[in-house]
Amino acid sequence: MKVFNHSDILALEKRYRTNLINKISGYKSAHLIGTKNAAGQTNLAVFSSVVHIGANPPYLGFIMRPTSVERHTYENIKSTGYFTLNMITADLHEQAHLTAARFPRENSEFAATGLTEAYLADFPAPFVEESVLKIGLSFAEEQLITVNQTVLIVGKVEQLIVPTDALKADGDLDLEALNTVTIGGLDTYYTGTKLGRYAYAKANELLKKID
Amino acid sequence: MKVFNHSDILALEKRYRTNLINKISGYKSAHLIGTKNAAGQTNLAVFSSVVHIGANPPYLGFIMRPTSVERHTYENIKSTGYFTLNMITADLHEQAHLTAARFPRENSEFAATGLTEAYLADFPAPFVEESVLKIGLSFAEEQLITVNQTVLIVGKVEQLIVPTDALKADGDLDLEALNTVTIGGLDTYYTGTKLGRYAYAKANELLKKID
Repeated sequence: MKVFNHSDILALEKRYRTNLINKISGYKSAHLIGTKNAAGQTNLAVFSSVVHIGANPPYLGFIMRPTSVERHTYENIKSTGYFTLNMITADLHEQAHLTAARFPRENSEFAATGLTEAYLADFPAPFVEESVLKIGLSFAEEQLITVNQTVLIVGKVEQLIVPTDALKADGDLDLEALNTVTIGGLDTYYTGTKLGRYAYAKANELLKKID
Repeated sequence: MKVFNHSDILALEKRYRTNLINKISGYKSAHLIGTKNAAGQTNLAVFSSVVHIGANPPYLGFIMRPTSVERHTYENIKSTGYFTLNMITADLHEQAHLTAARFPRENSEFAATGLTEAYLADFPAPFVEESVLKIGLSFAEEQLITVNQTVLIVGKVEQLIVPTDALKADGDLDLEALNTVTIGGLDTYYTGTKLGRYAYAKANELLKKID
């Protein structure tokens, strides 16, 4: 075992620290966030920080650095009030990673990576046609994280598009069938293999495997 | 494809909605959060909402509902200022799921699930001995998410314990070798299989696979 305390981490070489600290939280969610600015120019960016905020009513959130390459996403959400979350699957993971390059604003990541804009009636932000699970959200709130000026953006789920095949009778989704990927650190992509689905745990009862 | 708008989701049967909405964000991180109250009573709870907040200085966050079964975790962090994140691996996933049962406060989830408390000198919160990657954090800030009264807790990484075998020369961690798991929804656990690790993407250049 290797033990690093806070000072040890601060003293690490920058690239080493970036690789290590970004990966210690384990597997992360993998999405392409689609937005459009007031002039109609679209933007698409890979994110690994989407988190569940609530089911009823349905809210999702994500963490961003508004001063970095993620700035266009932030500005577009704030100016239009809408964004999309498009699940990254194995088929899309290379194109998803490419969206992190610093393209000029007039060069949409959709065109640059060969992904297709898709729209739902009355929903202003662009979806990724090739993504199998698409979520359209309206901006609900933002919270500034004061320790490092990152921001938690919370969106309300307005539209949810899921493949009928992967949707089970009880509302569960088969992430393996969807070929969903998960991200480690800033640069590594993985598929998942199910160990088990379990019933709600109860004190003094054995764990019950459902599936 | 099945399309649900916001009203459709609100109208779903409760259990169906819970299963669906908790799973639409895809694969999530998997941790056991260890805490202790002022009287020395330990608590351990499974969480799937840990997110990266920053690498330099190192911060991690997670989302919680302070009024639910997660209340003990919240109260302990607020009263002592410390908590631990213990990576869930395939070996531990069944015990991790069991921690979600409603044990009385005087019955620690450590004892109830057969996991072992471990301590580092000068760090007050309990680690899980059996977890291969352990992180000790101090409470840094909390942000109330006003739409549903959930809370984002942010912690500063004070201690990081990683297995030497899984740590590569450039600071990257081999999550496959660690047998790290990822969570889907509230009840499904998966292992990961690497598709690839890629170099930082650059505009007008082909994607370069590192590993």
